Amino acid sequence: MKKFVAEAIGTFWLVFGGCGSALLAAGVENVGIGFLGVSLAFGLTVVTMAYAIGHISGAHLNPAVTIGLWVGGRFSSKEVVPYIIAQCLGGLLAAAALYVIVTGNGSEIGSFAANGYGEHSPGGYSMEAGMLTEFILTLVFLVVIMGATHKNAASKFAGLAIGLALTLIHLISIPVTNTSVNPARSLSQAVFVGDWALAQLWVFIAFPIAGAIFGGLLYRWLAGGDE
Amino acid sequence: MKKFVAEAIGTFWLVFGGCGSALLAAGVENVGIGFLGVSLAFGLTVVTMAYAIGHISGAHLNPAVTIGLWVGGRFSSKEVVPYIIAQCLGGLLAAAALYVIVTGNGSEIGSFAANGYGEHSPGGYSMEAGMLTEFILTLVFLVVIMGATHKNAASKFAGLAIGLALTLIHLISIPVTNTSVNPARSLSQAVFVGDWALAQLWVFIAFPIAGAIFGGLLYRWLAGGDE
Amino acid sequence: MKKFVAEAIGTFWLVFGGCGSALLAAGVENVGIGFLGVSLAFGLTVVTMAYAIGHISGAHLNPAVTIGLWVGGRFSSKEVVPYIIAQCLGGLLAAAALYVIVTGNGSEIGSFAANGYGEHSPGGYSMEAGMLTEFILTLVFLVVIMGATHKNAASKFAGLAIGLALTLIHLISIPVTNTSVNPARSLSQAVFVGDWALAQLWVFIAFPIAGAIFGGLLYRWLAGGDE
Amino acid sequence: MKKFVAEAIGTFWLVFGGCGSALLAAGVENVGIGFLGVSLAFGLTVVTMAYAIGHISGAHLNPAVTIGLWVGGRFSSKEVVPYIIAQCLGGLLAAAALYVIVTGNGSEIGSFAANGYGEHSPGGYSMEAGMLTEFILTLVFLVVIMGATHKNAASKFAGLAIGLALTLIHLISIPVTNTSVNPARSLSQAVFVGDWALAQLWVFIAFPIAGAIFGGLLYRWLAGGDE
Repeated sequence: MKKFVAEAIGTFWLVFGGCGSALLAAGVENVGIGFLGVSLAFGLTVVTMAYAIGHISGAHLNPAVTIGLWVGGRFSSKEVVPYIIAQCLGGLLAAAALYVIVTGNGSEIGSFAANGYGEHSPGGYSMEAGMLTEFILTLVFLVVIMGATHKNAASKFAGLAIGLALTLIHLISIPVTNTSVNPARSLSQAVFVGDWALAQLWVFIAFPIAGAIFGGLLYRWLAGGDE
Repeated sequence: MKKFVAEAIGTFWLVFGGCGSALLAAGVENVGIGFLGVSLAFGLTVVTMAYAIGHISGAHLNPAVTIGLWVGGRFSSKEVVPYIIAQCLGGLLAAAALYVIVTGNGSEIGSFAANGYGEHSPGGYSMEAGMLTEFILTLVFLVVIMGATHKNAASKFAGLAIGLALTLIHLISIPVTNTSVNPARSLSQAVFVGDWALAQLWVFIAFPIAGAIFGGLLYRWLAGGDE
Repeated sequence: MKKFVAEAIGTFWLVFGGCGSALLAAGVENVGIGFLGVSLAFGLTVVTMAYAIGHISGAHLNPAVTIGLWVGGRFSSKEVVPYIIAQCLGGLLAAAALYVIVTGNGSEIGSFAANGYGEHSPGGYSMEAGMLTEFILTLVFLVVIMGATHKNAASKFAGLAIGLALTLIHLISIPVTNTSVNPARSLSQAVFVGDWALAQLWVFIAFPIAGAIFGGLLYRWLAGGDE
Repeated sequence: MKKFVAEAIGTFWLVFGGCGSALLAAGVENVGIGFLGVSLAFGLTVVTMAYAIGHISGAHLNPAVTIGLWVGGRFSSKEVVPYIIAQCLGGLLAAAALYVIVTGNGSEIGSFAANGYGEHSPGGYSMEAGMLTEFILTLVFLVVIMGATHKNAASKFAGLAIGLALTLIHLISIPVTNTSVNPARSLSQAVFVGDWALAQLWVFIAFPIAGAIFGGLLYRWLAGGDE
């Protein structure tokens, strides 16, 4: 039970911190944090939770990560579904809290940091470009996660390496899709935006999960008999 | 005695570095550090002091943290009050030094990086939005602090994780309240501004402490019999 | 075999993340990540791969590093050529993927983050300035790599120190040459640009390798009988 | 002998990286790294050298640090002068290399990142404000250095904590004095600028050293019989 609560808290933090910094602080005139600050924020949600609750739940904070670790042979089948449910609930709670805060100065929620492609991509990138980006980034994300937590790695650094991988992923791809690599983060924002965000949501569920599965299998092969 | 001096030095550094970077360097034209630089500065005051004086005083640097650790079962009752006094004195000394430096080019102190809501929120956010933000952020801050220093965690990384949590907290919330999560930091700046800053100060004492208490209790439950 | 695949994946990541962030996110109006974000991205590709695949291939990700480590006495002769081939293939694959994504909003690839001097230097720096910069930076890069992985060093931090060295190198020199210090990264982008980029490519092969050789020898002397 | 060469290389890197990033990359239109990037660059010179050559020379890279560690009881008297000479030579060599590169696009060297007060302070801060700032920052810098390398600290993190302390110091004070806290860094740039920079140089020798002496003594008292 406590590990599910930990996953919910952690995913709450990922969405609240990552999407919150994007909504509240990215575009402030002159002193705004920009995409660089948002990238750092997403990464630091993972760094902080990895060290805080990693010893309780593993701090996946992301259904694609949970699935990738499962196909990679690192996570037990029977906990996959409850982890994903906990992650989605935590994300939704964070989006609700952000709704209250963001509208607390009379603003509308706008695109609410939801993921999108085509006309809903920040830089106008096509659906195909978005799919390829999400697939590659989640694939390598899983390689980093599985590699950094491998028994031959300096695994106390894993929380740092994995969190900074998420920062890097955002540095590359916010202009393309607003960066998902995490279906729970995509779901929570899409629910509040509705409309186009829900219509495009499948891309940000399917491609991160597909990338995670390939990444999990790729690393499993790389580490070979040395797992 | 020495641990109280250490807390005073550390909180001096937090206020001098965090508020100092905001006042001196955030808004410089073209090359200013912006909210991202200020967020990094606040976090690095904690990272540096955690490794420098953590082994002397624990480097709380924050009355809300001291209280949260106490209700979380990690800190002894009889040192709560002297710690808080040392933290407030260190913060006030830093604010005095900043007063001398900031006015050293003929500038006024302006809002002096004091915390505020409503018309004194950098982004015009309401009192309710500010209260919710301070409560949530301090709550999770305590979860990170208690989790990262738990015996099952990679606790040598705690200073890094906790400091970067403070960076993350600022990345999210400078536009909302100028970010407190720390009554000593709020007090020191409000004393020099007076007026509205003193009138709003109670919010930045009450809500960080309330969040810290909930966070301390929440983590205590999470870690369960495994403390 | 697996170590060559690991080097290819790692160099794919370096080019995809570093050049990708430059092409997609650096110049976005108001919220773009700028040279600072690109510097961070390049460094984080190394940090993440060092912890993820360092235990498989050593995570060189760079022909100059492979050669520098070889003359420094840290790498076996017979693997030098296959490592370099794997790195170049990984880089080229990343450039191909970036080609698809970058043109996915109808943009041209422009200079495609290729390295250049004279009129192709971002800041108009001469060939001689570019040569000196690439030589010095790769020289010190090798000192950092060999020093941080030395048996007397806190070598679990090596991935972090080496990656952050690459961030630092980019903070200094993007305006001079777009920063190479890595012939594989220079090759991959030049192939897609053709023309001037191929004509200037020799500088970004010769000077990083020359710097790496001097750096490898310098550190070998510094560490003396203590290797 | 080798430890003096190591100090020269390390201080070369500090000046080349810190001042170089300021001169080449800080003010580039739209994508420049600003004071935040320069702050990060200075800090990363120390992080990288701490892990690369810390085990050879201790990586002081700064005469004020060498003197502070000596009065703090951590460094032997007979090596103080040769360390300072090596640091100054390394810094001067870096300034010469930067001279060649910076002028390589036809630019003048301008203020060459030299330290200054009054009309030569970036933000027009008075001599007194500059003195107080340099004194406080170097004082706390020594507390961090001595604390983070203390036997009771997690001392493998010292390189990271100390380097990030230098980043923080720059985040606060570039607008005040261009940030010295390091007489070797001040000397190297002033020699190339001449004139006002040499006339003001004494402030950036005297106050960092004074701060370092107080910081060294303060920490020595703090750590008490536990040294």
